Amino acid sequence: MAEAVAAGARSTEGTDVTLRHVDDAQPNDLLEHDGIAVGSPTWCGLMTWKLKKFFDESTSVWGKVEDKVGCAFSTSAGIGGGNEMTCLSILGAMINYGMLVFGVTDYSAPGVTAHYGAVAVGKPGEEELAACRILGQKLVQHVRRISGK
Amino acid sequence: MAEAVAAGARSTEGTDVTLRHVDDAQPNDLLEHDGIAVGSPTWCGLMTWKLKKFFDESTSVWGKVEDKVGCAFSTSAGIGGGNEMTCLSILGAMINYGMLVFGVTDYSAPGVTAHYGAVAVGKPGEEELAACRILGQKLVQHVRRISGK
Amino acid sequence: MAEAVAAGARSTEGTDVTLRHVDDAQPNDLLEHDGIAVGSPTWCGLMTWKLKKFFDESTSVWGKVEDKVGCAFSTSAGIGGGNEMTCLSILGAMINYGMLVFGVTDYSAPGVTAHYGAVAVGKPGEEELAACRILGQKLVQHVRRISGK
Amino acid sequence: MAEAVAAGARSTEGTDVTLRHVDDAQPNDLLEHDGIAVGSPTWCGLMTWKLKKFFDESTSVWGKVEDKVGCAFSTSAGIGGGNEMTCLSILGAMINYGMLVFGVTDYSAPGVTAHYGAVAVGKPGEEELAACRILGQKLVQHVRRISGK
Repeated sequence: MAEAVAAGARSTEGTDVTLRHVDDAQPNDLLEHDGIAVGSPTWCGLMTWKLKKFFDESTSVWGKVEDKVGCAFSTSAGIGGGNEMTCLSILGAMINYGMLVFGVTDYSAPGVTAHYGAVAVGKPGEEELAACRILGQKLVQHVRRISGK
Repeated sequence: MAEAVAAGARSTEGTDVTLRHVDDAQPNDLLEHDGIAVGSPTWCGLMTWKLKKFFDESTSVWGKVEDKVGCAFSTSAGIGGGNEMTCLSILGAMINYGMLVFGVTDYSAPGVTAHYGAVAVGKPGEEELAACRILGQKLVQHVRRISGK
Repeated sequence: MAEAVAAGARSTEGTDVTLRHVDDAQPNDLLEHDGIAVGSPTWCGLMTWKLKKFFDESTSVWGKVEDKVGCAFSTSAGIGGGNEMTCLSILGAMINYGMLVFGVTDYSAPGVTAHYGAVAVGKPGEEELAACRILGQKLVQHVRRISGK
Repeated sequence: MAEAVAAGARSTEGTDVTLRHVDDAQPNDLLEHDGIAVGSPTWCGLMTWKLKKFFDESTSVWGKVEDKVGCAFSTSAGIGGGNEMTCLSILGAMINYGMLVFGVTDYSAPGVTAHYGAVAVGKPGEEELAACRILGQKLVQHVRRISGK
């Protein structure tokens, strides 16, 4: 899904995209990018502890990312299994940091959308990956509107 | 979905089930039943205003339903379209009233569960209806444990 | 609190502010403004049904407000009484509409902030009103960054 | 606050209370107690990563705690700073595990309650500690109703 979000972002000419696994992410990654899409599998209806640890330990940039735009994506083992809740937890953390966050109103296919972030049950199918690409495109659109680039 | 939740509850011998449309629901319905399952289509990622109006105007029983158990169910137009969020809004209102609330850890089929309530995208299929029945059964189990009946 | 948010917004030269009671709000109000701050007293830990009705019945502009920025404010009868939850419900509805939403990281005084929107317990004091003003100012800053005006 | 919740629980004769720091908590602690109150400081509007790690790594008891009752408490650096959101994240994790969760409708003092769990801004005062004691008492009441003891 991260790669599909990245592909969506890259589909807009002139966009540089960096992919980071949570194990490698650094606080400055939040500072050095204009838009940030964060994904997590669903654990207990929230982002994983590893991702939470990243947010908890990136306080050096807390409150310094007000000009950044954020969005979320998640997988769960089932429909009704917490993927929206996990997106909400990520958006909530971004709001806490001072970022602007958004969801997607478009549908990538009938019955597939990303109102609070892109989601998938188990391995994402083509339609869920299409929703991820839309998410990435919207992220770039919002960033460009904000940065004026 | 309401009928499937009711069917699940009725599958346990000796259980009386009342079905109420939001237009007909009365505050005392919350008092007079031991378990309450509340469903709503997803509008803006929350219960509909009509259902919210019911909760807002049932304050005559607010704080008097601590011995009640509640759960939620919802539909949305898409996966990622807010059905979990809507369940969360219903559970949140029930918690506000003082009720005990729960979700379901079981899966009615691979990839179909009801961790924060039973959900469906559009018209519920057999697997989603099965999740509704599990929800109704669990509601009765919790009620019986609590009421000692 | 609405007046304090408005005062904060107006403190930035050249900003036009419209105040609308929920009873008078129209869907086009969302279209015709670049930034929207929405407040509600806390009922059941969510926005009131009247405000929800406004969102539910403004679908004519749903998905057409992606260039808008939104934020929230709320009062409750007690600390721990749902004012943050109410702000979350408002932000969630705005995200559903496709808007960009944000909170405030600043503190208006020691122990008073607005991470998910400005809040107050009962009648807002000076410090809570100051948080509302910060919220209004931030809203204008975000709008200007986005609109390039 | 944990000690005040414990004191509230102990005020009901015959109640055994165990206090566990998150660093020492074991999955079986969830199995071996009838009621579980979990608290966390607010980080990013959610429980800390350490507490999340505990939930993420206690999957050996996931789905086996349906007869347990849970509640939450939290502190934040400010009003509007995320203490309710943190309680919500804890309740959400408990719901995910299959537990019954609840909040408190009572007010420990004018303007101090615990609708989604007991909260405090900074160091809890007497009124916030009183809300914690009420939370602990309610937990015991719910447990006794459910266990029939």
